[in-house]
Amino acid sequence: MIKVSVMYPYEPGARFDHDYYRDNHMPMLKSRLGDACKSYTVDKGISGGAPGSPPTYVGMCHIFADSVEAFQTAFGPNAKDILGDIANYTDLKPTMQISEVVVG
Amino acid sequence: MIKVSVMYPYEPGARFDHDYYRDNHMPMLKSRLGDACKSYTVDKGISGGAPGSPPTYVGMCHIFADSVEAFQTAFGPNAKDILGDIANYTDLKPTMQISEVVVG
Repeated sequence: MIKVSVMYPYEPGARFDHDYYRDNHMPMLKSRLGDACKSYTVDKGISGGAPGSPPTYVGMCHIFADSVEAFQTAFGPNAKDILGDIANYTDLKPTMQISEVVVG
Repeated sequence: MIKVSVMYPYEPGARFDHDYYRDNHMPMLKSRLGDACKSYTVDKGISGGAPGSPPTYVGMCHIFADSVEAFQTAFGPNAKDILGDIANYTDLKPTMQISEVVVG
């Protein structure tokens, strides 16, 4: 199992609509990817390690898929629509990472 | 529910013993935190968004707890031992983040 993490670096004053992300963007992504997205999780950054410090990421999602190939095959034809929706909830540029799920 | 993410930034040539992390460090952390750690996940970085590019993080763990306070109360007395074990699997300095679990 692999996990695709999409992480939005915190910037003071940047826009990030957590409600839209949870209620619109992620369900749309799941709908487009179908079974290639086994499940997903969504995080809202609270702080860094020290209480009151800013989080590294204001928001993250983690998308679970059977393999990198399965994800890419499903994502490719939908990339334009999924990425095009980002402007509806943030002006931040996300960082992406693909990980092997060692303990899930 | 909150999630404490501990993320080890990728550096070329840096040491990270994924087996020790999975088989020794994380079970020790779970044992020390007890019920304050509801569960945890472990990731091994494969790549960035582009195939073949380095991942942002070579390894990550995500620790689930009922609240920031519950985590900190359990972590505090064990911080020295848990943090002192890091040198046994890596020479990297982790980044920590606390998030609210929006979709778990």
